Amino acid sequence: MSIADRLVELDIRLPPVFAPAGSYEGCVLDGNILYVSGHGPISGSDFVRGKVGHTLTIAEAKRAARLTGLSMLATMQQTLGTLDRVERITKLFGMVNVAEGFDQTPAVIDGCSELLIEVFGDAGRHARSAVGMAELPFGIAVEIELIARVHD
Amino acid sequence: MSIADRLVELDIRLPPVFAPAGSYEGCVLDGNILYVSGHGPISGSDFVRGKVGHTLTIAEAKRAARLTGLSMLATMQQTLGTLDRVERITKLFGMVNVAEGFDQTPAVIDGCSELLIEVFGDAGRHARSAVGMAELPFGIAVEIELIARVHD
Amino acid sequence: MSIADRLVELDIRLPPVFAPAGSYEGCVLDGNILYVSGHGPISGSDFVRGKVGHTLTIAEAKRAARLTGLSMLATMQQTLGTLDRVERITKLFGMVNVAEGFDQTPAVIDGCSELLIEVFGDAGRHARSAVGMAELPFGIAVEIELIARVHD
Repeated sequence: MSIADRLVELDIRLPPVFAPAGSYEGCVLDGNILYVSGHGPISGSDFVRGKVGHTLTIAEAKRAARLTGLSMLATMQQTLGTLDRVERITKLFGMVNVAEGFDQTPAVIDGCSELLIEVFGDAGRHARSAVGMAELPFGIAVEIELIARVHD
Repeated sequence: MSIADRLVELDIRLPPVFAPAGSYEGCVLDGNILYVSGHGPISGSDFVRGKVGHTLTIAEAKRAARLTGLSMLATMQQTLGTLDRVERITKLFGMVNVAEGFDQTPAVIDGCSELLIEVFGDAGRHARSAVGMAELPFGIAVEIELIARVHD
Repeated sequence: MSIADRLVELDIRLPPVFAPAGSYEGCVLDGNILYVSGHGPISGSDFVRGKVGHTLTIAEAKRAARLTGLSMLATMQQTLGTLDRVERITKLFGMVNVAEGFDQTPAVIDGCSELLIEVFGDAGRHARSAVGMAELPFGIAVEIELIARVHD
């Protein structure tokens, strides 16, 4: 089954590609390794913002991590032409905009990790860190960057 | 000398492999590049937790970074079969759970860097960042992730 | 035009190579991938230090990010012999030492990203994250690490 068909089956529609918020690219393909820039959670026309553990619950933050994953997939599809070129999601770096004392960051980033496994199956299983940041751009709740192996 | 013999010589016993605390893998092998997920300092049956510069001294935190390195080695050995397959430790990203104003993060992460050089010799020498985080999972004092080159 | 000539044309003089502040290397070449360790902003004989949004303005911090880029270029030139070996800047991880509530981190790291594009042209365009840290080593205002593809 193609990833496009799999997304339909999962009732997942990818959001518009997010235009980089500065002098950088949304992702860079280095040979067969794709480096996806830090993305945030876009919901409709705005970001999901806030401090997790204070203005956002863990469930809201986990959903923000899933939205972040969807935004990364949109960027990857645009760069690669098709997500069928993804051979393996290698690694995530997951960053949570934390209120003081909030240390359940792995449960938040699981929202993105689980999405990638739903979409790519075992090829979506990846290495990861999931940590708490002092601040993220524009006050977004979650930021995630990703490395993947792709084929031609 | 094999790395196993070297560990005996150094009187180092690796801890049990830590089971990932979420929907991710402890490490992923991409061709000949091994991406090791963020690991923490395990001491006996618990983590070393706390804010460095407040509830932990720099010496305690440096030892926590060494324990984190041992946990990464245990994961690498399980995935690779033998640590003799490690050709080079390429890069660390070292994260310290800091109290406000604690900026001696390189001295903390040296606890892991020095371990890797003890174990692998010059092949253990690596690039690195060593920075201060707002929060780490479960309040652990240190989290480190790693990239290594391995052979078949 | 060689990169050395390009630097002259841009009136850029690289600073002295910064000696690593711990048990690590300034950068590591893994085949054709160069991993540059976290560098900070050196101005004359000292670092640019402070909390962005409190003791430093955004303009001062953006200049610190540019200085950080220059320090990375000095390290890369020493390791590679010549910056002409740089084929592509692949990825940055940009870390800003933030005061509470400062979330304009992309505008800060642009100071480094724009430098790399000035120096390398399109080959300087890269993937990136630009995030806010609780603390950085020695209180530096900005720390950046980098991955580049190089040729022999």
